[in-house]
Amino acid sequence: MVSLNKITKKGKAMYLAYDQGLEHGPIEFNDKNVDPKYIIEIAKKGKYSGVIFQKGVAEKYNAEIKKSKVPLIIKLNGKTSLYKGEPMSEQLCTVKEAIKLGAKAVGYTIYLGSQHEWKMMGEFENILREAHEKNIPVILWAYPRGRSIEGKSEIELMNYSARTALEIGADMVKLHFKGELKDLKWAVKSAGKTKLVVAGGAKTNEEEFLSQIKEIMSSGAIGIAIGRNIWQHEKPLEISKKVREIVFR
Amino acid sequence: MVSLNKITKKGKAMYLAYDQGLEHGPIEFNDKNVDPKYIIEIAKKGKYSGVIFQKGVAEKYNAEIKKSKVPLIIKLNGKTSLYKGEPMSEQLCTVKEAIKLGAKAVGYTIYLGSQHEWKMMGEFENILREAHEKNIPVILWAYPRGRSIEGKSEIELMNYSARTALEIGADMVKLHFKGELKDLKWAVKSAGKTKLVVAGGAKTNEEEFLSQIKEIMSSGAIGIAIGRNIWQHEKPLEISKKVREIVFR
Amino acid sequence: MVSLNKITKKGKAMYLAYDQGLEHGPIEFNDKNVDPKYIIEIAKKGKYSGVIFQKGVAEKYNAEIKKSKVPLIIKLNGKTSLYKGEPMSEQLCTVKEAIKLGAKAVGYTIYLGSQHEWKMMGEFENILREAHEKNIPVILWAYPRGRSIEGKSEIELMNYSARTALEIGADMVKLHFKGELKDLKWAVKSAGKTKLVVAGGAKTNEEEFLSQIKEIMSSGAIGIAIGRNIWQHEKPLEISKKVREIVFR
Amino acid sequence: MVSLNKITKKGKAMYLAYDQGLEHGPIEFNDKNVDPKYIIEIAKKGKYSGVIFQKGVAEKYNAEIKKSKVPLIIKLNGKTSLYKGEPMSEQLCTVKEAIKLGAKAVGYTIYLGSQHEWKMMGEFENILREAHEKNIPVILWAYPRGRSIEGKSEIELMNYSARTALEIGADMVKLHFKGELKDLKWAVKSAGKTKLVVAGGAKTNEEEFLSQIKEIMSSGAIGIAIGRNIWQHEKPLEISKKVREIVFR
Amino acid sequence: MVSLNKITKKGKAMYLAYDQGLEHGPIEFNDKNVDPKYIIEIAKKGKYSGVIFQKGVAEKYNAEIKKSKVPLIIKLNGKTSLYKGEPMSEQLCTVKEAIKLGAKAVGYTIYLGSQHEWKMMGEFENILREAHEKNIPVILWAYPRGRSIEGKSEIELMNYSARTALEIGADMVKLHFKGELKDLKWAVKSAGKTKLVVAGGAKTNEEEFLSQIKEIMSSGAIGIAIGRNIWQHEKPLEISKKVREIVFR
Repeated sequence: MVSLNKITKKGKAMYLAYDQGLEHGPIEFNDKNVDPKYIIEIAKKGKYSGVIFQKGVAEKYNAEIKKSKVPLIIKLNGKTSLYKGEPMSEQLCTVKEAIKLGAKAVGYTIYLGSQHEWKMMGEFENILREAHEKNIPVILWAYPRGRSIEGKSEIELMNYSARTALEIGADMVKLHFKGELKDLKWAVKSAGKTKLVVAGGAKTNEEEFLSQIKEIMSSGAIGIAIGRNIWQHEKPLEISKKVREIVFR
Repeated sequence: MVSLNKITKKGKAMYLAYDQGLEHGPIEFNDKNVDPKYIIEIAKKGKYSGVIFQKGVAEKYNAEIKKSKVPLIIKLNGKTSLYKGEPMSEQLCTVKEAIKLGAKAVGYTIYLGSQHEWKMMGEFENILREAHEKNIPVILWAYPRGRSIEGKSEIELMNYSARTALEIGADMVKLHFKGELKDLKWAVKSAGKTKLVVAGGAKTNEEEFLSQIKEIMSSGAIGIAIGRNIWQHEKPLEISKKVREIVFR
Repeated sequence: MVSLNKITKKGKAMYLAYDQGLEHGPIEFNDKNVDPKYIIEIAKKGKYSGVIFQKGVAEKYNAEIKKSKVPLIIKLNGKTSLYKGEPMSEQLCTVKEAIKLGAKAVGYTIYLGSQHEWKMMGEFENILREAHEKNIPVILWAYPRGRSIEGKSEIELMNYSARTALEIGADMVKLHFKGELKDLKWAVKSAGKTKLVVAGGAKTNEEEFLSQIKEIMSSGAIGIAIGRNIWQHEKPLEISKKVREIVFR
Repeated sequence: MVSLNKITKKGKAMYLAYDQGLEHGPIEFNDKNVDPKYIIEIAKKGKYSGVIFQKGVAEKYNAEIKKSKVPLIIKLNGKTSLYKGEPMSEQLCTVKEAIKLGAKAVGYTIYLGSQHEWKMMGEFENILREAHEKNIPVILWAYPRGRSIEGKSEIELMNYSARTALEIGADMVKLHFKGELKDLKWAVKSAGKTKLVVAGGAKTNEEEFLSQIKEIMSSGAIGIAIGRNIWQHEKPLEISKKVREIVFR
Repeated sequence: MVSLNKITKKGKAMYLAYDQGLEHGPIEFNDKNVDPKYIIEIAKKGKYSGVIFQKGVAEKYNAEIKKSKVPLIIKLNGKTSLYKGEPMSEQLCTVKEAIKLGAKAVGYTIYLGSQHEWKMMGEFENILREAHEKNIPVILWAYPRGRSIEGKSEIELMNYSARTALEIGADMVKLHFKGELKDLKWAVKSAGKTKLVVAGGAKTNEEEFLSQIKEIMSSGAIGIAIGRNIWQHEKPLEISKKVREIVFR
């Protein structure tokens, strides 16, 4: 089995996600955090277990990333949020390129339930094959999306996401936490030997944010992948420290 | 012709199917059977002729599977049940990978009658070609599905499934038994030299379950592929023993 | 030009078609003719110029076919009749595989007028290229089908089918005879150097069946490809003999 | 730049087109002109700069074509007229095959404005690349077609066709002449270094036909590609001679 | 990182775009500017940092281009404006071909928000990979288009375009300037290390045109890609000179 050592510390993980520029547009950014260098700085000083970039950022800011020594995780597929139909996220970077850019792990989104699910499933497997041959772990962004999932229980969708990651061979799954602690615990169980990290979301109240991380870390999940709650924060290093103390407690 | 020796005993077969995690989600599981190790244990102690996993499970639990010595059957394609349109199940594991993971046979689903039937037919044939070159038997999950089959006779669909398996070259066909014993006998005849195993289904009353297996084994079918009626059972080894005594009588 | 010698006698041909199991399902069969061995027996004793199987049957019954010495024609594509939309028939066997199985010719269906016509046209050409390199003749099943042909003259469609076969390079075309003798003669002319054989159909009255074959053989067509009128017949060898005497007169 | 010498005389061209069998069906033919040998005879005696066939005809009548010494132009893609939706014409012959059959140039249709325009554009470019490597000129059949062009000015469409041919790299463009002489002159200008030949059409009055050719030849177009007005003519050699005297005046 | 030296002077750029023949048709042209040689002349005498052509023009006028010494930028994909549905622009020239034709950079359009966005994204990445291996810069034409973007803020779309270019790895982005100077400044920031050039548009009033270029050059954008405002101008060299003085001030 592929080792997660390079992107975990004592089996725990705290990732700084910064692929929102492609997925949502620069509407999420301000004058500071629009700059990838600002993020690399936070990732470094905040002692993150990894920083998540698209290929373009990883390539153009490669010197800065390497200097920071923060483990690089490249998100291999992506799309803009502009198209309104059934979501499809295409591969934009090969495993080989990712390795050349210094990636310690790669990520890939599957929109479960989309009309294009099968295309992403197939592309994911090709990536998995190549990554495992090179000993690179693969993180699945497991996101149910599209017309077919309307009205479905969000808790069931979370659990289904976790299980799908195991079944299709992901080394780690990144998903949205819905429901209560017991539900997340069940998702962790469903994922079996596939490790689970919880994805962040829009910026929220700090207290609530930290309390949720505590809950997550008590569920058996190995960590979190957060973005806006950190780099939209006025004092990103302070909040990072608080998070870190929970995650690596 | 490819030999079925490694996945049959005296020409009969009893497979433990466990790909429901991807096809239905963990909603089928409880705290015990959510764990692939529990299933491997049943497969071993229940003396199954094979255990059916998706690649992810086969890879992450490979040590346990190998230790159990239960013949591994990898289901090469799969999909979630979330998408509501015409079903398409994409290849998620190559024959080469399956062999590397120790598989003694591979499986593939074709949703007959789906708008995407032709894609699955074509993918199946590529798999068949490679598998036969490596002397690995191929089991077709022949499942009529999609808008076009609404209102069709389930017995005719069963027979059509059996025959399709022969025509397109499957070594074994796994299908749902509909109708009476005479109908299943006709399906067996329709499948010719392609061996037929009956797929299980949702958990049912034990007596009915065992009585149906007797009927199946008297039809000329060589066995069964069962899942939920075993691993959702309170005493999976006891029920396995009862099934085994019928199948290998 | 590729020689038709191995699948004709004195320039005439009489083929026994048996791909209905995939195209229509076993609904066409009875206890006897459901068995490919029964068909091989008829083909042999009925002195057919060729017997037409899908790859699956050709592979599983290869010993019997070889022993019979009836020239084997493998139908390279196929589909079930379940899907109700625009027809698409995917390649299920390569030319290389067909040759390995002993095929003396290969067949391929194009559903002219289907939304997928172009895919089948393209696939046909790849097959033609490879087959001609290996000196294997290619028979086109030219079948107008799909929403677009509704209301079109069947005679014109027959003629268009014949001509298409010549234009795209088929060595032989198999089509349905519509209209009168003069119409079939025109189809033969339209096909130019591409040889024409008439496809059979549902079982009909014997007298009518034989009389139609006489008409066909007087049109310039080189023969017929028949199935149900033979193997659904109570005395297949008797009717085969009568047909043979007309075809090879 | 690829030389047009083999398919022009003194920079002028007069092609005999005969791909209507695939594009329209044999409905265009009579007992004489249904036979490709009749067309080869006209092309030879009529001293055409080239004769245009689909691969099937080029292959089956290759001996006759070679003997005639008329330069062979193979149309690389084609479709029947049966399908009613957005037109797509698939590649049916490779450049390599065309060369093997003795082709001095190849042709390809793009239905500009079709939903499938991009597929044909992409396929065209692959053909162009291979053809130019082998020093074979490529003629673009530039035909606006499909739902999107309804109501558009035919003159503008003609000009757009001419320009597209230049932009995407065709060595020659074959298009339908719409409007007046000044419009065709503008099309010739729009095509720049890409040579322009005018496509014929349904059989028309002879006087009108010849007068139009005079107009064409005065526009800067280098010639014409005609079919039905020749081989549907009672005296094809007489009319060919009249055309020839205009084109090569 | 790939150097932009060959297509910039002192870090600034002024490109003459001439791919409108394919994208809009010759409706944009007059008797002079319909001729690529006229454009090459302007590019040379106007001291442009690059001239943008489709492959066809680059190939047929290659001698003239080389003689002019204006850096050649080949636009690798394109489509006509005829099709009314979701836009898709297919690759028409490989990186290898572009290099052979002497290109110093290549361009590619992605219609962000189109149903086909993912296909263009994927094709773009393959181009980027090959180009970067050969040290050739890639310019992204980032154009939001299609049904999904109706009603969206044009300023946000501009910013999203800029950011997408960075995220997916373009070396330069060409986009339409919408809104005020502050908005363009934000787009420049969003693009990070990806350089931004502003695309021209339909011919406008000269004063307004020049004043807009001043604004653009004060935003941090490195330059402009203009076409119709130059080659539709009565005195293209005069206006080029005025532009040049602003851009390279």
